[in-house]
Amino acid sequence: MRHRYAKILIFILALSLFTPAFADEGLWLFNMPPSSVLKAKYNFAITPEWLQHVQLASIRFGGASGSFVSPDGLVLTNHHVGQGAIQNLSTKDRDLMRTGFYARTRAEELKAPGMELSVLQEIEDVTAKVLGAERPDMTAVQAAEARDKVISALEKESTEKAGLRSTIVNLYSGSMYHLYKYKVYTDVRLVFSPEYLIAFFGGDPDNFTYPRYDFDITLFRIYENDKPINSKHYLKWNTSGLKENELVFASGHPGSTGRLLTLAQMEFLRDVSYPTTIANYERRRALLQEYGKRGLEYARQAQGPLFGIENSLKATIGYQSGLLDKALMAKKAKEEQAFRDAIRKDPATDREFGKAWDELALAEKRFAEFFKAYRFFEGGAGFSTGYFGMARTLVRLAAEKSKPNDERLREYRDAGLPSITRRIQAVTPIYNELEVFNLTDSLNQLQKEFGIMQEVKWLFAGKPAEDVAKELIAGTKLKDPEVRKSYLAGGLDAVYLSEDPMIKLALLVDPVSRGLRKKYEAEVESAETRNGALIARAMFKLKGTAIPPDATSTLRLSFGTVKTYVESGKKIPFTTTFQGLFDKAAKFAGKPPYELPPSFLQAKTKIKLDTPLNFIATCDSIGGNSGSPVINRKGEFSGVLFDGNIQSLPARFVYSDEQNRSVMVHSQGILEALTKIYNAQPLVNELLGKK
Amino acid sequence: MRHRYAKILIFILALSLFTPAFADEGLWLFNMPPSSVLKAKYNFAITPEWLQHVQLASIRFGGASGSFVSPDGLVLTNHHVGQGAIQNLSTKDRDLMRTGFYARTRAEELKAPGMELSVLQEIEDVTAKVLGAERPDMTAVQAAEARDKVISALEKESTEKAGLRSTIVNLYSGSMYHLYKYKVYTDVRLVFSPEYLIAFFGGDPDNFTYPRYDFDITLFRIYENDKPINSKHYLKWNTSGLKENELVFASGHPGSTGRLLTLAQMEFLRDVSYPTTIANYERRRALLQEYGKRGLEYARQAQGPLFGIENSLKATIGYQSGLLDKALMAKKAKEEQAFRDAIRKDPATDREFGKAWDELALAEKRFAEFFKAYRFFEGGAGFSTGYFGMARTLVRLAAEKSKPNDERLREYRDAGLPSITRRIQAVTPIYNELEVFNLTDSLNQLQKEFGIMQEVKWLFAGKPAEDVAKELIAGTKLKDPEVRKSYLAGGLDAVYLSEDPMIKLALLVDPVSRGLRKKYEAEVESAETRNGALIARAMFKLKGTAIPPDATSTLRLSFGTVKTYVESGKKIPFTTTFQGLFDKAAKFAGKPPYELPPSFLQAKTKIKLDTPLNFIATCDSIGGNSGSPVINRKGEFSGVLFDGNIQSLPARFVYSDEQNRSVMVHSQGILEALTKIYNAQPLVNELLGKK
Repeated sequence: MRHRYAKILIFILALSLFTPAFADEGLWLFNMPPSSVLKAKYNFAITPEWLQHVQLASIRFGGASGSFVSPDGLVLTNHHVGQGAIQNLSTKDRDLMRTGFYARTRAEELKAPGMELSVLQEIEDVTAKVLGAERPDMTAVQAAEARDKVISALEKESTEKAGLRSTIVNLYSGSMYHLYKYKVYTDVRLVFSPEYLIAFFGGDPDNFTYPRYDFDITLFRIYENDKPINSKHYLKWNTSGLKENELVFASGHPGSTGRLLTLAQMEFLRDVSYPTTIANYERRRALLQEYGKRGLEYARQAQGPLFGIENSLKATIGYQSGLLDKALMAKKAKEEQAFRDAIRKDPATDREFGKAWDELALAEKRFAEFFKAYRFFEGGAGFSTGYFGMARTLVRLAAEKSKPNDERLREYRDAGLPSITRRIQAVTPIYNELEVFNLTDSLNQLQKEFGIMQEVKWLFAGKPAEDVAKELIAGTKLKDPEVRKSYLAGGLDAVYLSEDPMIKLALLVDPVSRGLRKKYEAEVESAETRNGALIARAMFKLKGTAIPPDATSTLRLSFGTVKTYVESGKKIPFTTTFQGLFDKAAKFAGKPPYELPPSFLQAKTKIKLDTPLNFIATCDSIGGNSGSPVINRKGEFSGVLFDGNIQSLPARFVYSDEQNRSVMVHSQGILEALTKIYNAQPLVNELLGKK
Repeated sequence: MRHRYAKILIFILALSLFTPAFADEGLWLFNMPPSSVLKAKYNFAITPEWLQHVQLASIRFGGASGSFVSPDGLVLTNHHVGQGAIQNLSTKDRDLMRTGFYARTRAEELKAPGMELSVLQEIEDVTAKVLGAERPDMTAVQAAEARDKVISALEKESTEKAGLRSTIVNLYSGSMYHLYKYKVYTDVRLVFSPEYLIAFFGGDPDNFTYPRYDFDITLFRIYENDKPINSKHYLKWNTSGLKENELVFASGHPGSTGRLLTLAQMEFLRDVSYPTTIANYERRRALLQEYGKRGLEYARQAQGPLFGIENSLKATIGYQSGLLDKALMAKKAKEEQAFRDAIRKDPATDREFGKAWDELALAEKRFAEFFKAYRFFEGGAGFSTGYFGMARTLVRLAAEKSKPNDERLREYRDAGLPSITRRIQAVTPIYNELEVFNLTDSLNQLQKEFGIMQEVKWLFAGKPAEDVAKELIAGTKLKDPEVRKSYLAGGLDAVYLSEDPMIKLALLVDPVSRGLRKKYEAEVESAETRNGALIARAMFKLKGTAIPPDATSTLRLSFGTVKTYVESGKKIPFTTTFQGLFDKAAKFAGKPPYELPPSFLQAKTKIKLDTPLNFIATCDSIGGNSGSPVINRKGEFSGVLFDGNIQSLPARFVYSDEQNRSVMVHSQGILEALTKIYNAQPLVNELLGKK
């Protein structure tokens, strides 16, 4: 499954050249839709009304996606997208992951702590304003600072004027800037979630595979002033199903793709970034599995993090498989060379764009030199505990708030503050034994890699990592939300005079972390933006904007068809059914991860077993698209995207519709389960618009 | 001697009531001179021209004083004021402290590293502008911040407009604000200094005593563009001497007095501040004496610091003797009570001013609670090494420069930056063995007092203080001025990614230091200013401005007469002579500290032995006045102030002209020694205006 657990480094996104979009490729901007392709290939005339309706029915769900499915603020997403909220609402004695949840009345709906959903209201092209801040004689760093000032001013102005949270999205690696304005909702309540066993049936072995049999959905409802909101732009339910080759759309928030990266950037990922992260996931998975073996409650605590790690690990291995594919890389190299050759033909064009590739390569080379340090300090990999995250946020928030808006670290600008302060105050469960376990591991890594550094020596003082971790976790008072609130109120003074060991730790490593970040921004990011933008402009010049920009965690539209594919000579059907689910469980004798929850076993006789449960389509997607509504021509909700098959992973870099498929829960399957298994008739009525 | 070694906390200056000035008390403002007193008591009509001439001939010499004594930029001050420069120009093989120095030609004059002299050009009353920033509903902290914004804006504006370094001086504890504009000189060269033996004849035993026999002078010359400046406002030489009861003036930079402090503030000094500093000086003196015993070169290295500590120790004990004097404190209490009673009589006056004393007392009580921590961290007492000072300056300079001018720590505002950057780049000797010695001692104190703090634990990591000190000093590269320069250029990035252990130490303790400073400013300083200003305004209302403000390290004029006093029933003569000097040396058989340098011994027969060497007068002075020219009615240089007698020390709090005397080197004695002992005829000709 492809919930974006780690916000994968957006900075690695820059541009290189591919041949223009073919097949059903593309994560398209809502304000630059693929109208002509849709018209030509599918005879579908996409209208502004259709687009606006879908945009306003689409929901940004942290780093993932969702949609409105009733006029009363009902929101549908994946179980694995809502999992954080479900775990936060669970305790040792009320394990909603295990039992599932259904609020038969609105009064029973459970408010999820610290949650925030947003809906994109408007997009404004501010490219001219942002790029207008650059002067030709500026260095890459100066240009980045100049743009940054304009960006933060525009964001602040728009946020204040429109009363909408406004952020500027950097597209095509800094050659386009669009201002996105969001309405933000913070009262989000859990309405329905199935048992983890059926939401994630097949577990890690079946993750990123197809055929699939997962009931990976969860429903929330958005409230304002203690009343469900009026969500007039919601998706009506498709009850008539989908045919093979039928045109469908997915509307969601793909996190990050690298299709326009240069070869050097891909090599950086292949040789530096991915090997490190894969090894780290492997080690942490093994450790968390051991932790879970200590007992049932330990297993419950480890379930969420373990899912996240296994999911990311499988995805990253999949991405890496693309980069390790020599044919794919050779193709990429050839295309890049062809583009560079084309540029070299005209001396003026060469002067303008020619050096960009080499300068980008140099930036990657520089980054490789301090990538590990960056990851351990600024990335926080050396201090894996939620408490460190809290402490760093409190320390930095206090420091940044005392600066002018446009000089702050970007995540602490005014536009983002309500979100941060809400999150830091949210009451969510945290398990000290698990925190010690995680922190010990990361400190061990830190000492192995950076034991020679003064800060690390100070922190360890000759003690083993476990003792250090235990002291830090036992000493911190940040578990108490009131304590966190008091730091928010107390500002820098409270932070500076804190005696909390976790705050002290955050203060201890903040200088070197900030230093590495600054170095990264100066030596890597600014060069990536400058040269990435150059390459993009060269591409526009030579080929126009037929290729959509790489994903940026913002709303995109993709299209495709419901379609089988051939694997090992076998044609894979485009839907699975409830019958297939029961068959698969039987084949594995109901042993984990093919164990069915009692609700499914008990209701088997009532279910219409040939009802479609999951289905596939060619529409382009990647991590972050989890929870995206899949929509037919009429704009009806036809399913919810929850995964891609294993062949879709290399599509992070090169898309092909031959075998690449997104995997959805079918709208008919959802109705069948809600009706027959969960007896959720009021919910079904709401989805179908029946009173 | 009263060179201001430690800039004694200016914040402890606030107001209380004394009866109006009587006798010759007063460190008067040049823009609010005691004209009527001078007229009434001495029939001296002080003119604007006289004042302006003296002001422009007076020099600010670090925390002390000096004056122009020729039209070619020649500056006279004390040897102990110039001592830092003399030591910086000395090496193991060229010990100018021992040998003295005389540049027979201008080419031989030695440029002193990092030195900065300034001359006050203009004073502007900006009280209305500064206080106009306050609003009645502001808390003390808000008011302080509002004033601060105006102050830094005015300073910046004036510095830029006038091309003069401009700083605002807070007078009468925040009830008056004057803008001082200085011309700053940075090319300062050593012209003449005598041997330490005669400059500080009598050493610590005779320090702060009288009769005295010290040749405590040094001459520098100010250059600009490699040429001596044209100093048209210089003091002509008084060759005709001084008579008993003759009116004289001292013009200099008294550092800090506490005559307008409330009883609570004096009690804070008596019970909290002075006991701590006295104990610290005692311990450090003992240690430095031990260090000096290791050998001749060790003694040479320890000489400067030891002088400073002994000087401060004796002064502080003298101040404390005033506070421990029960009669003096009872008088003070009675006066304060009478003032408060007078205020209580009118309900409106009482409402406006009545609470100020209790609120001040509360602020002192609060400060007592964290005074020690403040001293060790923000005060730097825990890290006694010049390297820590450099590291902290580099760390803070980088951090503060990235903030808007008016939000910086006040010493890092634009107006002060040239001075700081010059000082940090200056090439001055630093002795690692002495640094380890001092740092070890302070770390031992730190651990004893604050060993429980996380930062301290980290720093020690279980090791003894000496090992920690050795590692820090051996590891730092800050000895190299080029390294310091590179941090200046590299800014925050260089600091954050530094691997220098001293920079790391400064970063480690900076948060808690800043926290304590902020706490001090919020809980103590702002209350002192607010309530001190209230008490001052009450005083203005009841008694006008007949009492000058307490000293603030800025230019002041005091007056008095050359006058004997009676001690133990014995009348003390108002001058001493060369004869007296030789007699005293003989009495102690020329043993240290009564050892005469060879130059004096050899020249004895040539000297006119009844020439006055030192003399005394009643004019008010305190630490910082060292180097002040003492001037007769005609405005002639008649001597240089270098000390006060022991009876003058309690005058920090209560002045009396009964026994309180300032001690000077006589202008005739200076001529005699330069001519007969040092054969410095060209210099004498320059002083006398002969070609």
